[in-house]
Amino acid sequence: MNMLVDGEWRTDAYETTDDDGSFQRQETTFRDRIRDDPDARFQPESGRYHLYVSYACPWAHRTLVTRALKGLEDAISVSVVDPYRDEDGWQFTPEKEGCTRDHLHDANYLRELYVTADSDATCRVTVPVLWDTEEDTIVNNESKEIMRMLDTEFDDYAARDVDLYPEGYQDEVDRILDGIYEPINNGVYRAGFATDQGPYDEAVNDLFSALDHWDDVLADQRYLAGDRLTEADIAMFTTLVRFDNVYHTHFMCNVQYVREYDNLWPYLRDLYQTPGVAETVNMDHIKEHYYTTHPDVNPHRIVARGPDLDFEKSHDRDELPGDRPAALSAATADD
Amino acid sequence: MNMLVDGEWRTDAYETTDDDGSFQRQETTFRDRIRDDPDARFQPESGRYHLYVSYACPWAHRTLVTRALKGLEDAISVSVVDPYRDEDGWQFTPEKEGCTRDHLHDANYLRELYVTADSDATCRVTVPVLWDTEEDTIVNNESKEIMRMLDTEFDDYAARDVDLYPEGYQDEVDRILDGIYEPINNGVYRAGFATDQGPYDEAVNDLFSALDHWDDVLADQRYLAGDRLTEADIAMFTTLVRFDNVYHTHFMCNVQYVREYDNLWPYLRDLYQTPGVAETVNMDHIKEHYYTTHPDVNPHRIVARGPDLDFEKSHDRDELPGDRPAALSAATADD
Repeated sequence: MNMLVDGEWRTDAYETTDDDGSFQRQETTFRDRIRDDPDARFQPESGRYHLYVSYACPWAHRTLVTRALKGLEDAISVSVVDPYRDEDGWQFTPEKEGCTRDHLHDANYLRELYVTADSDATCRVTVPVLWDTEEDTIVNNESKEIMRMLDTEFDDYAARDVDLYPEGYQDEVDRILDGIYEPINNGVYRAGFATDQGPYDEAVNDLFSALDHWDDVLADQRYLAGDRLTEADIAMFTTLVRFDNVYHTHFMCNVQYVREYDNLWPYLRDLYQTPGVAETVNMDHIKEHYYTTHPDVNPHRIVARGPDLDFEKSHDRDELPGDRPAALSAATADD
Repeated sequence: MNMLVDGEWRTDAYETTDDDGSFQRQETTFRDRIRDDPDARFQPESGRYHLYVSYACPWAHRTLVTRALKGLEDAISVSVVDPYRDEDGWQFTPEKEGCTRDHLHDANYLRELYVTADSDATCRVTVPVLWDTEEDTIVNNESKEIMRMLDTEFDDYAARDVDLYPEGYQDEVDRILDGIYEPINNGVYRAGFATDQGPYDEAVNDLFSALDHWDDVLADQRYLAGDRLTEADIAMFTTLVRFDNVYHTHFMCNVQYVREYDNLWPYLRDLYQTPGVAETVNMDHIKEHYYTTHPDVNPHRIVARGPDLDFEKSHDRDELPGDRPAALSAATADD
């Protein structure tokens, strides 16, 4: 692995596993907030903020889904890095299908943006990055917080009237976001990056116990928090959509496919078919990234074929308690 | 890899892949035959021959299933190597669950037997090995040929009247054995040991095309060659029984599980439930061998959890044309 240390790029500075062979995720470092408040340093505006993402990364994917559901495409622009990440970290290769140049700085590597934001940065260089063009710096690089800001602070600039953190549901949404993080969102990484059997076994047990639990919950309600589509569903979606083609085999989370679950699989299709979401899913980038970027896990960097998944297949989730937000109710693939 | 070169053990002498990254299996080298013929050098006798096997190896497993179906346990004894194979090759670790000592020579490593048989041996050291205690040498180490010898030459010593290469079916059995070898039996290895994308893709395509084909065939007949259980089914069985727990993830043969096939999965259970067969399946040895023995494929040697398979679950295969041999028809798990 690699990271910035005092603003210098180091390829030997970062270990992802503890002494016991368990994966440890480092904390993200830029944690400012955009707030709809005249006293705030970062205030919501159209055209002021920019997202740096990878289509491959489930954390970055959260921000793309939120942006799409809210209809923030015109308000917040996006640069997309190469799904293949080598020792130089995330990079811009605009000639590659689905990638873009760095629309703001024409940087070659994402780490240049981190150094621009903080010349003494000491951190991993990760996506997503929420960039402020006014101060030319990073506002935040923590996916859950960016998701929340896009969701709650930009209603004046959103093309769709969609509230993913509605009153009356907020405690439950926060509880679910926290609850699924360790066993599911991060759990697949704990399984895949474990270097000893014990931490792997524990991660896989936690992961499938949690998936079994949510499969049961989703038998009776359309969404994780009940009858409303929320940020919790976005966080679950970006893990589930990668599961059968990547985590299942590459990270050895192979007790069963998501497509074998009675409720998680239709739930995943329901979310995929929600207007705006399918366009955020680039399975080629997802598969290329994981299988080619982790030689410690997959030495020959061969991309596994994986199952053929029909995300467009119809489902009966709309018969359960809960409706999509009215602004998202039209033109679904199964209507 | 490693092999004997002029009777000396070498750990640098063997490459499994061609220049194009495709896996190449080396030919086996001891190819004598036991024949029920007074002029033959090796004639069938009870107590004269010995099998060296690994429960992990699908090729060795063929000989164990044949021995069990025929009821040759008293006529042909067995030594079982450690499922973990390191740079010293297959070894004997009698203290380990399911393993035995070398009952004939008390060797530490299987390669010692190869040198005993041929002091100038230049070959891979593989299982199964069919050993002749009279001449103290290897008769044969090619699984298909050992399977055939046990099947056809030992009827005088078999506890069960079972013919797995029956007249009227022989051409078809040979055709199927040859036909499934490259895409299925060896196909999983071609996928798993490929070091480039092209050979992997080709292997996976060949493998699942062949599985799809046989799934169709098995919709209308109980066994591969029609209504008779034959050697062809044994050869298919030892690959299928390893598939979902090993080949699917470890060798990235992950288009679908065997348990998702409409006919292959009940067919696999039918074979598993045939008297004598279940006792030859040691899933712990199978999983330990593959996941821990190939650091080029699985660097941290973590054993993947894998799906829970109920091989004892009932099936309706007995409603199809075809019956088990009468000697095998009683006391099945689903009766």
